[in-house]
Amino acid sequence: MSHSTDQTPERPTGHAVPTSADVARLAGVSRATVSYVLNNTSAVRISEPTRRRVREAAEELGYVPHAAARSLRAGHSRMVLLPSAHIPVGPLYSQFFNDLQWELRRLDYTVVQYGSVGLKPDEAARAWAELRPVAVVSLGEVELTEQAVELLKRSGARAVITLGTQQVPGTHSLAMDQGRIGEVATAHLIESGRRRIGVVVPEEPGLGMFSRPRLEGARRAAESAGTGAAAGATVVPLPLRYDEESADELAGRWRELGLDAVFAYNDEYAMLLMRALQDAGISVPEETAVVGADDLLLGRLLRPRLSTVHIDMVLGRELAELVDQAVRDADTPPRSRRLLDSRVVRRESS
Amino acid sequence: MSHSTDQTPERPTGHAVPTSADVARLAGVSRATVSYVLNNTSAVRISEPTRRRVREAAEELGYVPHAAARSLRAGHSRMVLLPSAHIPVGPLYSQFFNDLQWELRRLDYTVVQYGSVGLKPDEAARAWAELRPVAVVSLGEVELTEQAVELLKRSGARAVITLGTQQVPGTHSLAMDQGRIGEVATAHLIESGRRRIGVVVPEEPGLGMFSRPRLEGARRAAESAGTGAAAGATVVPLPLRYDEESADELAGRWRELGLDAVFAYNDEYAMLLMRALQDAGISVPEETAVVGADDLLLGRLLRPRLSTVHIDMVLGRELAELVDQAVRDADTPPRSRRLLDSRVVRRESS
Repeated sequence: MSHSTDQTPERPTGHAVPTSADVARLAGVSRATVSYVLNNTSAVRISEPTRRRVREAAEELGYVPHAAARSLRAGHSRMVLLPSAHIPVGPLYSQFFNDLQWELRRLDYTVVQYGSVGLKPDEAARAWAELRPVAVVSLGEVELTEQAVELLKRSGARAVITLGTQQVPGTHSLAMDQGRIGEVATAHLIESGRRRIGVVVPEEPGLGMFSRPRLEGARRAAESAGTGAAAGATVVPLPLRYDEESADELAGRWRELGLDAVFAYNDEYAMLLMRALQDAGISVPEETAVVGADDLLLGRLLRPRLSTVHIDMVLGRELAELVDQAVRDADTPPRSRRLLDSRVVRRESS
Repeated sequence: MSHSTDQTPERPTGHAVPTSADVARLAGVSRATVSYVLNNTSAVRISEPTRRRVREAAEELGYVPHAAARSLRAGHSRMVLLPSAHIPVGPLYSQFFNDLQWELRRLDYTVVQYGSVGLKPDEAARAWAELRPVAVVSLGEVELTEQAVELLKRSGARAVITLGTQQVPGTHSLAMDQGRIGEVATAHLIESGRRRIGVVVPEEPGLGMFSRPRLEGARRAAESAGTGAAAGATVVPLPLRYDEESADELAGRWRELGLDAVFAYNDEYAMLLMRALQDAGISVPEETAVVGADDLLLGRLLRPRLSTVHIDMVLGRELAELVDQAVRDADTPPRSRRLLDSRVVRRESS
């Protein structure tokens, strides 16, 4: 079922939406003056009493400038679109996104999030393009293609910024370096004398963009430890759903697998797996060391206290300034930079 | 620092945004026909070959209809604005919001979320109004005032729907009945023979809209148990920050407080407080019963397993249909309905 706009009944009259023409009439000025005053244009000299009169008239009528009309006149918008995350990204990303929105607003952008659940790259690009954003900052919810980026650019987007590992032509890519998280966790386990290291790979859809590079990072750490005393470390991928049944099943064949350590993807999966291991009689850290990631409070509440990877994210302000620069100068060469930094916090579980 | 739109440098030429006129020219039809075809208007009969020609021309040029231009012509938009939550609302609400967005898109609305962190009611209403949404569905991130609602309506919003306990004139209010959560938890504790019941009140900003009604619900349960064998139950509010220091401090004076049970706001605060109580030598549930809320997996991973309040939320589809109805008939009388249903899941901690 789908309603086109034409089928929507007309708005009842008697409650007309005030326009800038109404404000101009009430204030006794031109529409251009109303526009200059309400859009804070400093290029045009307008006296303070006139500005006040316009503001008071707008207030009295309840007039608000229309972002879309303004962008139609200007030929571009000030809207930055963030495809919103439908995956459980955790408090770390929530905070980062709050900061980013705040900083973009400070730079006078309008920030909207667009839920992009279940959209294919071209559908997503089309849906976003309908809103005519001047920039799109994608965490990686949708795997952008070159055509999708081209469509966005043709619709007026000056900057498409991707936070992820993929390198799509025409975008500014900020590498999240998820691989580093798996790498430092695994290097820590190897240094502590562990040799058979499991790496949890969540089976929940949408987490692959995080879990794949973490597994690769773990493999890199095992390979680079290939000489000397640490030689012979191996990495074993462990698919796991976020439920007790899946964790119990994995714990039940733990000794068969012959593992002496596990990097458990993040603190929540680590909590789930550690409980299953303990219930199966496997002692942590004696028989198996466990390391999570994200450094959540819950890890400190577990017994033994959970070792974890602490992740520092780039400031929202830095990213907001990159967006602004890319919008103002569409010729800013696409480039990559690191968005994350990671270090191990060793507690009792490893 | 603030850039007005006028100061933004011009888009480099040679990459012009295609318009519906370009599509019309290439397809050899009128602009009106382009609009009818691309907006899926079924009211006008257009032959299939013509439709195909228009779609192919749009594809070739990379043309996407402009939502804002369409809404300017139609006099209203199809945009539903959801102020986005800056508070950690948890997986329950994330899922609900995903469902709501999906269902609204199925009804042909464009759904955008707008981060409204730190905005006052009038600032928020103004920022939202600039986007000219046809409906606003507010979880309660911003305490809407009557003036704010009036401003939104004057800017073309046909429906303002609030999910919360506040009753603002001109809105459709969907009561979340947070109070019921505290009520069923406390009634359960009283029925189990507990008499001095602490209720955790998180000190984190933004949670008051959840915690205040939960505390009131707990008090109602204690009052209505005022006769018979259950007489004399009392409720003691317990301010708590989500950190170990605050929890240890509270656990340290637990016996002074003389409490034999606690409703800990939700499962995460319950996990925090239960750890602090156990570390302070207070046995759960023997000396103190603990009940959380949200029925998260982590509660089942604790020892003792955490009792909790399971919350059933209304389907996203029901709410989407209410939004659609309110948009199509602005005279739909404002009304309240229940959004949540709550029941206790008893495990080992109570």
